[in-house]
Amino acid sequence: MRTLGISIARMEPGEVDLAMSYSAEYSQQNGFVHAGVLTAGLDNACGIAAFTLMPAGSDILTVEFKTNLLAPAKGESFVFRGVVVKPGRTLTVCDGEAYAVQDGVETLVATMTGTLMALQWRDAN
Amino acid sequence: MRTLGISIARMEPGEVDLAMSYSAEYSQQNGFVHAGVLTAGLDNACGIAAFTLMPAGSDILTVEFKTNLLAPAKGESFVFRGVVVKPGRTLTVCDGEAYAVQDGVETLVATMTGTLMALQWRDAN
Amino acid sequence: MRTLGISIARMEPGEVDLAMSYSAEYSQQNGFVHAGVLTAGLDNACGIAAFTLMPAGSDILTVEFKTNLLAPAKGESFVFRGVVVKPGRTLTVCDGEAYAVQDGVETLVATMTGTLMALQWRDAN
Amino acid sequence: MRTLGISIARMEPGEVDLAMSYSAEYSQQNGFVHAGVLTAGLDNACGIAAFTLMPAGSDILTVEFKTNLLAPAKGESFVFRGVVVKPGRTLTVCDGEAYAVQDGVETLVATMTGTLMALQWRDAN
Repeated sequence: MRTLGISIARMEPGEVDLAMSYSAEYSQQNGFVHAGVLTAGLDNACGIAAFTLMPAGSDILTVEFKTNLLAPAKGESFVFRGVVVKPGRTLTVCDGEAYAVQDGVETLVATMTGTLMALQWRDAN
Repeated sequence: MRTLGISIARMEPGEVDLAMSYSAEYSQQNGFVHAGVLTAGLDNACGIAAFTLMPAGSDILTVEFKTNLLAPAKGESFVFRGVVVKPGRTLTVCDGEAYAVQDGVETLVATMTGTLMALQWRDAN
Repeated sequence: MRTLGISIARMEPGEVDLAMSYSAEYSQQNGFVHAGVLTAGLDNACGIAAFTLMPAGSDILTVEFKTNLLAPAKGESFVFRGVVVKPGRTLTVCDGEAYAVQDGVETLVATMTGTLMALQWRDAN
Repeated sequence: MRTLGISIARMEPGEVDLAMSYSAEYSQQNGFVHAGVLTAGLDNACGIAAFTLMPAGSDILTVEFKTNLLAPAKGESFVFRGVVVKPGRTLTVCDGEAYAVQDGVETLVATMTGTLMALQWRDAN
């Protein structure tokens, strides 16, 4: 998240909004943010949303995700929204939405559905 | 691809191998390459594989992809393999495989299935 | 839809609810409705939702879908909800939700994200 | 599987082929086998392939799958091939391929990537 300049804008149990400013560094020639960057933002949003509902001492691992790219990702800034659809002891399913923001208008540019796995890393001690 | 230092190692009709060296910049604290980087590599491999079977003057757009993360992405270098499963005039379906390479041993760390769309950008002229 | 006894319960532009009664025929030994039946219901809901936003004379084809199975599909009846996330001239992306209904309570048992393609079949004439 | 008349044609550790004859019952007006039937066959193939690598006393649950529909599913019979891509103690990832067979020629009509979960049901006793 630090590499991409992503920060937490809002966080509640089972929900999170991440914010990212536009940077030419991780964009294509045409100024569109690359699918890998969108995926990283969405994956982080899903992971943090899942994390908010887990017991202390849990670590989280992404098992899989599916992303649909809906519109060119062009904007001054970006919002990555993660919402838990189904929490679970072992597996949690989250939905993510990526919005491009331009002149105060949000456009949905990509969606994700992801499966995340809780690891009880303190068990190892 | 330039940002991540990815280059084409092998290219045939409907198939491509991309190579990437490890860099601490796009890795997590534990040295694992981030899911967004793997996705970018896999998406590029699928896009280039699809591109090799398209008529001249086509541009390519990723519609959607699904990624499974299978093992920690730790290695000296990485290979992203893209193969066309079903070419089409409008839509092409590709499979991608990401391998971490350490001491000459390849480990499959992630897979992708993606749908790509051909755009005949010269039609606009 | 006839084989499974599915009917349209509600339909608006970009949205549809399908209803299905429980039948032992398409269930497993434990009384849970099989994933293939849930997928058929969700795929139909997504297809009809997409269809409501298309020009007359269009036919619709499912390109791909991803389904997460969230809970055992046990109930007296089932609702398959389809909503258009992003309409398009060629491709439309839809979300689907399958609910099991028991004693008036709806439980989300499966989700789908699907990509559908419009075919202008009248063009062929 | 009994409802659809699916049987095991070949089974090895981590791999299985299921066979199904064409039936008008689960096909559309045009004679194409419905996506829900293909998904059921692919899901069964993936589940059985995963099952062959699990310890005795395991039960198996499908977590999620993604299906691409590649060609019209028309044929005298169908083969559903399931292969384990990555076995695991908790989660197993499988690939599935559905082939339509006509006059001895196999055509790839759909693919699946699925995540399956092992349940140690004997643990409960």
